Amino acid sequence: MEIEIATVGGYEEVGRQMTAVRAGDDVVIFDMGLNLSQVLIHDDVETENMHSLDLIDMGAIPDDRVMSELDGEVKAIVPTHGHLDHIGAIPKLAHRYDAPIIGTPFTIELVRDQIADEGKFDVQNELVVMDAGETMDIGPECELEFVNVTHSIIDAINPVLHTPEGAIIYGLDKRMDHTPVIGDPIDMDRFREIGREGVLCYIEDCTNANKKGRNPSEAVAREKLRDVMYSMEDYDGGIVATTFASHVARVKSLIEFSRDIGRKPVLLGRSLEGYSSSAARVDAPIPTDIEMHGYRRSINSALSRIMEEGKENYFPIVTGHQGEHRALLTRIGRGETPFELDDGDKVLFSAGVIPEPTNEGNRYRSETLLKMQGARIYDEIHVSGHLCQEGHYQMLEALQPEQIIPAHQNLKGLSGYIETAGSFGYELGRDIHTTRNGNIISIVDE
Amino acid sequence: MEIEIATVGGYEEVGRQMTAVRAGDDVVIFDMGLNLSQVLIHDDVETENMHSLDLIDMGAIPDDRVMSELDGEVKAIVPTHGHLDHIGAIPKLAHRYDAPIIGTPFTIELVRDQIADEGKFDVQNELVVMDAGETMDIGPECELEFVNVTHSIIDAINPVLHTPEGAIIYGLDKRMDHTPVIGDPIDMDRFREIGREGVLCYIEDCTNANKKGRNPSEAVAREKLRDVMYSMEDYDGGIVATTFASHVARVKSLIEFSRDIGRKPVLLGRSLEGYSSSAARVDAPIPTDIEMHGYRRSINSALSRIMEEGKENYFPIVTGHQGEHRALLTRIGRGETPFELDDGDKVLFSAGVIPEPTNEGNRYRSETLLKMQGARIYDEIHVSGHLCQEGHYQMLEALQPEQIIPAHQNLKGLSGYIETAGSFGYELGRDIHTTRNGNIISIVDE
Amino acid sequence: MEIEIATVGGYEEVGRQMTAVRAGDDVVIFDMGLNLSQVLIHDDVETENMHSLDLIDMGAIPDDRVMSELDGEVKAIVPTHGHLDHIGAIPKLAHRYDAPIIGTPFTIELVRDQIADEGKFDVQNELVVMDAGETMDIGPECELEFVNVTHSIIDAINPVLHTPEGAIIYGLDKRMDHTPVIGDPIDMDRFREIGREGVLCYIEDCTNANKKGRNPSEAVAREKLRDVMYSMEDYDGGIVATTFASHVARVKSLIEFSRDIGRKPVLLGRSLEGYSSSAARVDAPIPTDIEMHGYRRSINSALSRIMEEGKENYFPIVTGHQGEHRALLTRIGRGETPFELDDGDKVLFSAGVIPEPTNEGNRYRSETLLKMQGARIYDEIHVSGHLCQEGHYQMLEALQPEQIIPAHQNLKGLSGYIETAGSFGYELGRDIHTTRNGNIISIVDE
Amino acid sequence: MEIEIATVGGYEEVGRQMTAVRAGDDVVIFDMGLNLSQVLIHDDVETENMHSLDLIDMGAIPDDRVMSELDGEVKAIVPTHGHLDHIGAIPKLAHRYDAPIIGTPFTIELVRDQIADEGKFDVQNELVVMDAGETMDIGPECELEFVNVTHSIIDAINPVLHTPEGAIIYGLDKRMDHTPVIGDPIDMDRFREIGREGVLCYIEDCTNANKKGRNPSEAVAREKLRDVMYSMEDYDGGIVATTFASHVARVKSLIEFSRDIGRKPVLLGRSLEGYSSSAARVDAPIPTDIEMHGYRRSINSALSRIMEEGKENYFPIVTGHQGEHRALLTRIGRGETPFELDDGDKVLFSAGVIPEPTNEGNRYRSETLLKMQGARIYDEIHVSGHLCQEGHYQMLEALQPEQIIPAHQNLKGLSGYIETAGSFGYELGRDIHTTRNGNIISIVDE
Repeated sequence: MEIEIATVGGYEEVGRQMTAVRAGDDVVIFDMGLNLSQVLIHDDVETENMHSLDLIDMGAIPDDRVMSELDGEVKAIVPTHGHLDHIGAIPKLAHRYDAPIIGTPFTIELVRDQIADEGKFDVQNELVVMDAGETMDIGPECELEFVNVTHSIIDAINPVLHTPEGAIIYGLDKRMDHTPVIGDPIDMDRFREIGREGVLCYIEDCTNANKKGRNPSEAVAREKLRDVMYSMEDYDGGIVATTFASHVARVKSLIEFSRDIGRKPVLLGRSLEGYSSSAARVDAPIPTDIEMHGYRRSINSALSRIMEEGKENYFPIVTGHQGEHRALLTRIGRGETPFELDDGDKVLFSAGVIPEPTNEGNRYRSETLLKMQGARIYDEIHVSGHLCQEGHYQMLEALQPEQIIPAHQNLKGLSGYIETAGSFGYELGRDIHTTRNGNIISIVDE
Repeated sequence: MEIEIATVGGYEEVGRQMTAVRAGDDVVIFDMGLNLSQVLIHDDVETENMHSLDLIDMGAIPDDRVMSELDGEVKAIVPTHGHLDHIGAIPKLAHRYDAPIIGTPFTIELVRDQIADEGKFDVQNELVVMDAGETMDIGPECELEFVNVTHSIIDAINPVLHTPEGAIIYGLDKRMDHTPVIGDPIDMDRFREIGREGVLCYIEDCTNANKKGRNPSEAVAREKLRDVMYSMEDYDGGIVATTFASHVARVKSLIEFSRDIGRKPVLLGRSLEGYSSSAARVDAPIPTDIEMHGYRRSINSALSRIMEEGKENYFPIVTGHQGEHRALLTRIGRGETPFELDDGDKVLFSAGVIPEPTNEGNRYRSETLLKMQGARIYDEIHVSGHLCQEGHYQMLEALQPEQIIPAHQNLKGLSGYIETAGSFGYELGRDIHTTRNGNIISIVDE
Repeated sequence: MEIEIATVGGYEEVGRQMTAVRAGDDVVIFDMGLNLSQVLIHDDVETENMHSLDLIDMGAIPDDRVMSELDGEVKAIVPTHGHLDHIGAIPKLAHRYDAPIIGTPFTIELVRDQIADEGKFDVQNELVVMDAGETMDIGPECELEFVNVTHSIIDAINPVLHTPEGAIIYGLDKRMDHTPVIGDPIDMDRFREIGREGVLCYIEDCTNANKKGRNPSEAVAREKLRDVMYSMEDYDGGIVATTFASHVARVKSLIEFSRDIGRKPVLLGRSLEGYSSSAARVDAPIPTDIEMHGYRRSINSALSRIMEEGKENYFPIVTGHQGEHRALLTRIGRGETPFELDDGDKVLFSAGVIPEPTNEGNRYRSETLLKMQGARIYDEIHVSGHLCQEGHYQMLEALQPEQIIPAHQNLKGLSGYIETAGSFGYELGRDIHTTRNGNIISIVDE
Repeated sequence: MEIEIATVGGYEEVGRQMTAVRAGDDVVIFDMGLNLSQVLIHDDVETENMHSLDLIDMGAIPDDRVMSELDGEVKAIVPTHGHLDHIGAIPKLAHRYDAPIIGTPFTIELVRDQIADEGKFDVQNELVVMDAGETMDIGPECELEFVNVTHSIIDAINPVLHTPEGAIIYGLDKRMDHTPVIGDPIDMDRFREIGREGVLCYIEDCTNANKKGRNPSEAVAREKLRDVMYSMEDYDGGIVATTFASHVARVKSLIEFSRDIGRKPVLLGRSLEGYSSSAARVDAPIPTDIEMHGYRRSINSALSRIMEEGKENYFPIVTGHQGEHRALLTRIGRGETPFELDDGDKVLFSAGVIPEPTNEGNRYRSETLLKMQGARIYDEIHVSGHLCQEGHYQMLEALQPEQIIPAHQNLKGLSGYIETAGSFGYELGRDIHTTRNGNIISIVDE
């Protein structure tokens, strides 16, 4: 059976992931993501009403014109998890394919939200829920399996396409977490089993390929957060926290620890309200008896009430972890909201800065404004969601794939992966394929 | 009552701490430390047989000649904890003072070891054990109190000299840890109480004064370590770990987790054997049924046995966390010991690199040698032992001292402290005193 | 004679410089600057129509209320050179003092421009031109002298107030340049002479106090620029350059080398047009037969013509060296102007990035946009305008002042200066005074 | 004609360069270098008496066993210039090939020195001098040409093997210098001409592939040095300088400027004496009337004399630019020589630190020791010898090769080159070949 892999997007960058695997006549697409930084570098761009081709020209969504070169029929679109760089282009591209979108419950819920917000295209693809551990037939000879993985969002999986020639594993995005705060640990037993059965090709998440050691578990982030928040137990002023809105496990920890220290948590900001509601709808094991507000008027009214009733009784969890210009935390820093900071009030960034100068500039500006109001800053209370070098090493030990395609980085960013794989004898150009957006790699040619 | 503070050593650097407080006719000395880097920059220096004056000239021990300008009698020498930069000069300087050395049990035990190794001077000062929470009279009007603190060594205290003019708190070295792995949390209640009674002067540990946020608890380091070690549970080759020999809580965690993953811990290296034995002698709550070897012959014989019996059954904890040239781990990297590394064997550095180019060079060299043998490196499994900016902020909130003396850093290193203290209205030159080695600061002049 | 120094602004930061010296009954003010970053951190602030007190609250201009505590009469306002952080607050503050503004020709010309743009206050102070090397009486016993120095703007001087108690030297801003491209070398002979006569107090520019070695001469920047530009001699596409608009010597080099490689220089952008015209008006030795445009319509029309006639014949020198959002170069990067970049076109940043995350973010964004258009980036073709450590060392050797006040930095930034001065035996708190905005230091108290 | 390229050494690292090109039956070897850092990481290694295989095992010299897979006869060994990473393995490997060693005059002179120092092997290969611009037949159909390039050593060339299939250019090591201090500018005219004739394959020096912009000319380094040294004209104490011993142009500048400021230059240290004598023997345009000493006794005697006659009259140029432990400058820092430093004496490092932690540690230690003696440090008075990104861009524009092989870096280090080449449409795996030591790349297979 002929097998080809089209590396459509996300192969020279972090963002706008899209990969298609053709096994004989059947094609499966993994991810359709958005590169947000390509949008933000321009001014005043509203993607909702933009046409796909303009977004492709901007480098914001994958250029899927290469798909016409794949001689097969698309049977499924499989987003691996609900981050925008993996699902954000679905509203712009999915309608071109007559195929269902298959994902885990939370992922499908977020895809549904994306489609609902779309203003330009009418996306009618069927949405199919499939859980980790389950399988589904793809054409007469192939099978799609979801292996449970752990990432900075719940319900992440690695899809495996079992073909007569061996398994093709699409390994984006994950860390190797044996003690996630929500959900099951990464299913290394199943990966090892698939490894013994034979892996034809492994596509790896190389975000942190140049970072040494092991990426810590969410349990470590939770312990860091606990340590920081308990240290504030005696403080009788304002405490505000921010984190990734989609990071449901982290939000859960923030909520729980805020109650432990005698404060009432409130979620404020459109994206926090959105992701948390979606998580509740799919029955994620999170606190649901929680006040949340997504729109500015109701946020302001909540903040006014908090100020009246005494901010020492509350724990607002707000948007703005990257110092985004219009996010709530930045607006608090500029003094544009009813929430007033006093000298000594605490602001927790339970998020890393995405390492890119524009972000760093925004975050610096946000922190400076907050400090000008008297705030004390606690940052980097976080762990990354991506494998570091020893996670890569352990995945290769478990899977022993015949071919490897590093993804989710540019060449400099993935160079450490080549070195790690080199420890097992893999060689660039022979069994490791660095590739570009828009390429097709032939894995089995007959 | 006249009160003066002589900032003898450690005020333009990290290392060779020594401070003397004169309250009326009575003088108490806090710490007598060694600056090891001033020794190591030279070749082949053996401090054991060197004279004090030569070590003073090298900048290795405090230049205590300023003590003659203090018009009072030394009543006590008080080391705060057992690190070399706080006790390492006792064998060279203590005999000049007719006063007892007063410390917590573990600190006194380590002082005893230091004195025993001294080859040049005959140190006869009485060694007096006093526990955290206890007090002792110093002259007719003053009282010495030990307040329990938390640091990267057990049995650390902050000594407080209660004078008729208010308390003088010598705040070196500590972090604010509410969940240390061994011992009690930092006694913030007592600090707050002393703060209410009135603090005349506070001398602060500014090692991390330019670091934002909160320094995490040892519980976070323990969780990081657990996460790393449990991830290796299935590995059936060699695993070696290194950490600070004096960091008894960390050694305890290493021992416990090694057993959890089915390996037998063995402590190897002179300093690991030394500190661990001393900890056992003072009944620290640590595993004592543990094999340990301090001398090269017995280390080699243990390593041979480990290789014979199967290194997959053992967990050697060894010296060499800074890549020291002659330490065991570096020698393993050079292939000079019976312990052989195979491809994929794990090496854990449960220690940060002390940020100084010579150290960084040594550590890089050690890691490179280990990697040339096939080892996989896990590093930075660690938290610092020193307060960061938010810890400083909380200490100032608790103590509200009249005067502040930043210590344990050079001016650049402590600049962040001035800024933090500035949030409370303190001003450099008015109530914050940056000082130099050999200065005397008059706190109350009548 | 009583002598006091009020360190009004620029003593905890870089920006909004203002210092007043009282000698007996006479007061001289040195500099009245603007801290632009405090303006830019807010949105949509137009300083032209703002009141002084609001700008003081923002931290944008010096809080000169301390001046009322100086028991003397202001006799002169002396800006040292024409950079905004030294003259930018004159339109907001100078009218409060009944005193002339005394400066070198180019500085006065720029002060005149500032005053002309002011929309809120009516500044009527007399503008007096005085050249380097000249002197003027200040009251019955003091004399003001201008010593020629070298900086990244022409016509910079260090004012010296000669008092019966010794000289007070206001040393901001300079580098030690023996081969400036325009004007005379720094007048070290005169500084040495004043040193021999006796310097009571020296206020030093500590911008680069933590940088090792010697800051290079403008001749080095010129040679770097020559090397870069001559290497493009054979290129037949577009070349665009940007630099500090006020850096007249650099603009001169850009113009000359552009002609050497057969291109016609054009200055584009409001600030480039402004500074260059002002320089021409004071007869600076620069090319004056040069096309320049300051307003958008005429810039666009010039760019259209350049595109028509062939951009390979032109060398546009444009604004935007820090990646400012609305500057011409950034707009070229966004494709908003008639000037089109082709693959391989060259963009020269003859300017360093001011090291602050917001700037770095802006510059990164600008470069990214330019690269997306195909441009090749040449950056850091520049040298700093401020003394590094060996310059400070040589100044202290020449002047041997009794007292030193480090300025133009925060404490961390000036810490290296304390160390450098320490080599001569100066000590913080004794003869080196670190100070805050709004302090008064008594130099001679009777 | 079949053409293969064996990338023998230096393709995953910087160091131990060796590349062989087979064109039909004829093979030419370019470079045989030593990776010194692989030697220095071990203790007490004396390479002079070591066997090739041991050095290969250490990773110190190229593993040339792959040569047996090349089906042709070695006709020439062609070192491109005299740096150790290009000629240092000749004494260990050249005798295995029955072929002359062909190089420029200075390169051959240094090869002769290397062979003379060899203690283990008897190297009898003929040494043939060929100048830049000259050609030589290699077999019946190929021709070897030397194109003049510019690097941090004189007499550097890029060898070109003209084959019936097109030119193969071995592009190591160079910068694009139009104003070198000694010798002719890089011969871009000839490169452009060869580009028009057709370049089959280009092997590029990627040392600085991740550095933006243009690497400056030696004229810039000379101007920096002039600026620093002239600024010391009035200093009447000791001034000491160090630089790369092989950097003849820099040594020439040091000598000339030292005379300009009224001091007598003296070259001290074995390698400085060696390279300078060799340069004199090939009539390089350098000052030859200069005192130099290579052996410790005569160095010490010269230093004693300098101290007696007044160090203010001398300008010792010494070894030790990387802080090497036993080099003269480091020994001066430790006070082991008759040369005594006084407070304020100047030490010039006219050399960059090779960016590797061990080097950085050594250099830091050396500077610290020198500063403890009172020395003032001037460092980084230097420019690199290797092309940065815009140099790479211009080379590709000139040559337009069909195939490219990046060399002289690991994958991370050369990643920027792939990006630069990507601007011209080159793609990794298609026409850019990243390779490993020991690979053979087939360029023309029939």
